[in-house]
Amino acid sequence: MNANPITLPLGGYEAQHFGLEVRGKTAVVTLNRPEKKNPLTFESYAELCDFFRALGKDETVKAVVVTGAGGNFSSGGDVHEIIGPLVAMDTVRLLKFTRMTGELVKAMRACPQPIVAAIDGVCAGAGAIVAMASDLRYGTVRAKVAFLFNRVGLAGCDMGACAMLPRIVGQGRASELLYTGRALPGDEAERWGFFNRLLEPETLLDAALAMADEIAAGPTFAHAMTKRMLHMEWAMGVDDSIEAEAVAQALCMQTEDFGRAYRAFAAKQKPVFEGD
Amino acid sequence: MNANPITLPLGGYEAQHFGLEVRGKTAVVTLNRPEKKNPLTFESYAELCDFFRALGKDETVKAVVVTGAGGNFSSGGDVHEIIGPLVAMDTVRLLKFTRMTGELVKAMRACPQPIVAAIDGVCAGAGAIVAMASDLRYGTVRAKVAFLFNRVGLAGCDMGACAMLPRIVGQGRASELLYTGRALPGDEAERWGFFNRLLEPETLLDAALAMADEIAAGPTFAHAMTKRMLHMEWAMGVDDSIEAEAVAQALCMQTEDFGRAYRAFAAKQKPVFEGD
Amino acid sequence: MNANPITLPLGGYEAQHFGLEVRGKTAVVTLNRPEKKNPLTFESYAELCDFFRALGKDETVKAVVVTGAGGNFSSGGDVHEIIGPLVAMDTVRLLKFTRMTGELVKAMRACPQPIVAAIDGVCAGAGAIVAMASDLRYGTVRAKVAFLFNRVGLAGCDMGACAMLPRIVGQGRASELLYTGRALPGDEAERWGFFNRLLEPETLLDAALAMADEIAAGPTFAHAMTKRMLHMEWAMGVDDSIEAEAVAQALCMQTEDFGRAYRAFAAKQKPVFEGD
Repeated sequence: MNANPITLPLGGYEAQHFGLEVRGKTAVVTLNRPEKKNPLTFESYAELCDFFRALGKDETVKAVVVTGAGGNFSSGGDVHEIIGPLVAMDTVRLLKFTRMTGELVKAMRACPQPIVAAIDGVCAGAGAIVAMASDLRYGTVRAKVAFLFNRVGLAGCDMGACAMLPRIVGQGRASELLYTGRALPGDEAERWGFFNRLLEPETLLDAALAMADEIAAGPTFAHAMTKRMLHMEWAMGVDDSIEAEAVAQALCMQTEDFGRAYRAFAAKQKPVFEGD
Repeated sequence: MNANPITLPLGGYEAQHFGLEVRGKTAVVTLNRPEKKNPLTFESYAELCDFFRALGKDETVKAVVVTGAGGNFSSGGDVHEIIGPLVAMDTVRLLKFTRMTGELVKAMRACPQPIVAAIDGVCAGAGAIVAMASDLRYGTVRAKVAFLFNRVGLAGCDMGACAMLPRIVGQGRASELLYTGRALPGDEAERWGFFNRLLEPETLLDAALAMADEIAAGPTFAHAMTKRMLHMEWAMGVDDSIEAEAVAQALCMQTEDFGRAYRAFAAKQKPVFEGD
Repeated sequence: MNANPITLPLGGYEAQHFGLEVRGKTAVVTLNRPEKKNPLTFESYAELCDFFRALGKDETVKAVVVTGAGGNFSSGGDVHEIIGPLVAMDTVRLLKFTRMTGELVKAMRACPQPIVAAIDGVCAGAGAIVAMASDLRYGTVRAKVAFLFNRVGLAGCDMGACAMLPRIVGQGRASELLYTGRALPGDEAERWGFFNRLLEPETLLDAALAMADEIAAGPTFAHAMTKRMLHMEWAMGVDDSIEAEAVAQALCMQTEDFGRAYRAFAAKQKPVFEGD
């Protein structure tokens, strides 16, 4: 439970367990305990989860950037604050915990705003999952993405990793990362399609913000539909997906943004989307 | 509705809204309004759809090449001939349109002949979907593949894109292309596995034809089964897929082509397939 | 039917149709008819199948390496010993055969131990499928991976190939390999993610053994769960996968290995896993 109920619009909400800044139409979430490489804690999980759920009701934020403070993305679940207590927990509470962490991924996939992760330095364990639950990933050569679960005696199947990672980098590469927990360096991550783009550490956040702003300036309703269908069609056959998309796109064709784009093109101008 | 009913065999059919030539066992479909970069229109959608449906009944064509005239593949749905009318359309007609465009992809996936797309220049919007609905894609460095839907205020989920693109280039790369509509250049398309091969513009069509002819000279019944199972197993578990393939392959083992190949190998000759 | 019933522990079992050596916690399976490039036969299929099924009951083997003798991995089903008899077989027996070959893939995916394939030289037909049914694949530049089925008049849908290959190398590249049967060279196989790593022929087996030993030294229960979930979530949506993993991981959190890792980390030591 998050003791700090989220208030709307999100620009006025003061997050307690991560940094939150709304710049224009883009919300920037910063994991911000740099002295410990931005670990996740019971409290930050709960608040992040509430935050991403609240995005579905917010009408001002159109895109999200997730990043980490101090040159690292996130070290994942903290050894002392999370792993220690888990070792002593009973079955009922353990499942409550694993379902709570999974809830964060579900909330990130369910929120209508596309999410851009800006990843430098350590991106490990649950931190690597948060990166994977984002829509796009920008990284640096010094980033190290590690699915560390087996290093702490756990399975690679954490928070949806065995479903998501194979679809991003392929089944063979995902298997290697999940069985070994080895750190995937930034350049290899780009080569494998885990990172969409490699940047210098100094320009990483700006590039992620620029991408988020570009998305935020786009057709909001349509972008939300793209995100929804990428999720819904995960395990759907091609023919059913085509039918589902026919309905979704017919709906998008009734938004004002579609008409705005047509009129702009006809007038040889760049369309300005308003999101409805 | 296509006002020009398809007649069999397809070698004798005169297409009105695209170029059609049957060379040996390979049908070459050319999107051919080069002055507008080969856009799709209501009429060409309908006729292409009927054509690919008819392939299932044709016994002379064993492979298909799809290409564009004048150095471009296709610019997708024409702004004036398609987007304009759609902006003014009611719900019922919009869904009829989106289902009709999706029907083209379904027809391309359902026809038993493997399809090789030869892609130079612009390959945008619905044109990029037609490329993706093909089995193999040959391209050039100057090809530009763009899922432009968001640029016209629409969602990336068009004609099955959110199902197909992630399986071809991975979930992260597909997300980027669908949210941004940016043009993927030929060399990156090859690196990502969107293009099977990169060629010079001058040799592109010949290479695609050679590939199609090679497939056409192969075991027709078996190739059709390969295509069918690639489609059917899209969202099937591994164990069920293995069972489905056991049945499919046992059937293929009863074709004459299987015996022909065995006898040729035993005689240290190259097998000549006849397709039955 | 395998006439040589498997006995446990596997270290004491004398395989008749392949080489078997248990080194520490790693079982090494060697396809060993090098004079014919290690083909599969009715007998070796049956014995391999029984072997991989028996691994589920063995408590000493924690990882498996599969390799071939004499510089080749496997040439697949032997032309004279398998293809010849199949050409003369009736429907009932054909299906019995294709289901038996598929059973080997199922057994490899179902056994709890991760499997590392060490692939040099020829890796063709059913040999390529055995490689694909492994969890990791180490190769050499001179390896040639060929899904040869269409060359003998059959379909690419053999033993689950149309399900597995697209998830490893992408849908477009898989289609090309399955329609053409062309040999994928080692460097391209690595670039596409089919091989996890490229090695010199001289160091291939040692590297595969080192990887297997590393996995074998890890948390056995958790690794088996990783393997299980990678298989189970093949055609499952993201949200359902997250739920399934929550349960699986809560179970892993109750193993001793999880506590061992925590105590080692707290003491700044390297954890030593015991597998329970």
